[in-house]
Amino acid sequence: MTYHMYVHGYSARESERLTDQAQTLTELLHRDTRYSKGSQVLEAGCGIGAQTVILARNSPDALITSVDISEASLKQAQETIQHAGITNVTFRQGDIFHLPFKPATFDHIFVCFVLEHLTEPQQGLERLRPLLKEGGTLTVIEGDHGSAFFHPDDPDARQAIDCLVELQHQAGGNALIGRQLYPLIANAGYRDLHVSPRMVYIDASRPGLVEGFTKLTFAAMVEGVADEVEKQGLMNQDAWKKGITALYHTTEPGGVFCYTFFKATARR
Amino acid sequence: MTYHMYVHGYSARESERLTDQAQTLTELLHRDTRYSKGSQVLEAGCGIGAQTVILARNSPDALITSVDISEASLKQAQETIQHAGITNVTFRQGDIFHLPFKPATFDHIFVCFVLEHLTEPQQGLERLRPLLKEGGTLTVIEGDHGSAFFHPDDPDARQAIDCLVELQHQAGGNALIGRQLYPLIANAGYRDLHVSPRMVYIDASRPGLVEGFTKLTFAAMVEGVADEVEKQGLMNQDAWKKGITALYHTTEPGGVFCYTFFKATARR
Repeated sequence: MTYHMYVHGYSARESERLTDQAQTLTELLHRDTRYSKGSQVLEAGCGIGAQTVILARNSPDALITSVDISEASLKQAQETIQHAGITNVTFRQGDIFHLPFKPATFDHIFVCFVLEHLTEPQQGLERLRPLLKEGGTLTVIEGDHGSAFFHPDDPDARQAIDCLVELQHQAGGNALIGRQLYPLIANAGYRDLHVSPRMVYIDASRPGLVEGFTKLTFAAMVEGVADEVEKQGLMNQDAWKKGITALYHTTEPGGVFCYTFFKATARR
Repeated sequence: MTYHMYVHGYSARESERLTDQAQTLTELLHRDTRYSKGSQVLEAGCGIGAQTVILARNSPDALITSVDISEASLKQAQETIQHAGITNVTFRQGDIFHLPFKPATFDHIFVCFVLEHLTEPQQGLERLRPLLKEGGTLTVIEGDHGSAFFHPDDPDARQAIDCLVELQHQAGGNALIGRQLYPLIANAGYRDLHVSPRMVYIDASRPGLVEGFTKLTFAAMVEGVADEVEKQGLMNQDAWKKGITALYHTTEPGGVFCYTFFKATARR
């Protein structure tokens, strides 16, 4: 397997979490991605289709080809798209590093929450580049778990997040990749590169995000690796429990939570 | 002394640093603060006048009263304002906790890089509130040193920043106050509270910020506490040096630096 979806995907609970996250963050991450009528768009690494639905709805007249290495994820993505009544997406199984397309096939390539799972993200970007037509655009969106900070602050909560980063590292990925998009994409040979941070800032005046992001997305994601953390002895179990409790404390009325996604655009 | 300017101010080098920072960040922090003709504005804690100049220029027809507890800072602020040819600012020495103004004197209160130095920031906000007219606005801007993250990441650099946070804590302040503005201001009794994060995102495509912020502001600020860190033995000296070097590495072509300020607005 070329890349791992260690943290995301596969289980029913995790799939639900991804869908919640997608809905809450749609505007923040997708508002400035609109592809014109007839343009050929490659979504490289569509997973279970959480972003595919948004992409396709925001660019209803573009022709989207969504690729993933996992047949199981593709099947789920296909069902999601059919259920949503979307007709401008074609699915195809494939490995980002060896995609079955001719050079200069696409006007645009879209890559979201994928590079974090690749052992060689720069190489992945290099392999995608010739698939773009001259002047075609690349759009990349990634998170960065090291960007999380919160109130009340808590050293155990920070260590629990570090465990997640460590596990993604063990799986060949990089949970701190958001901050690295500029050098990665520049080194892969793209031009007109622009990176914009998209911070999710959550205080008590934003209850939808408290629930949808801090609780159901972020804290749930950290909590989701509890067994693996215990199995590997990455953290003292009392400290782990205190850390998880502290993360949920940030969802109480006096709490604040910050997390930053990064969105990059560039041209071939 | 009610509050300490441990990190900022006083020395010539530090004053220069503050001026650089003010210029680079003016747009990001001040763009949405404009006070109308004839409005009475209190700048609570003006320091050496770095923000006063910007405030006064952006609201040339407002009547600004700038207060600070330090006579030395006020003198410098006064010189700066005179040198800039600004005439709508009156200076007055005073303690934020016991200001010599009648209730309901001001239409607006502006507080920038001040709460971080107060042992009782919520009490400070409570004392300021009655000085506002009914419906008058409060604007607060603060940084948060725990919001800094960067590429290449480095544990020694992170520890060096933690030393700065610890020293500000010892001085009675709080270098992580930015993330806490919402609960602090809400608990001080203000209404219509809105907090907006202002991230400074810096990659190689933004050389002015690499120089003006990462190098001359942030790294210089951390480096500025070297003697105190050594004196107190807060960090192994080899690790400290490595950490400072790593901070400057983030200013090289492949580097990235992120820091978040928080801006809050509310009404009495």
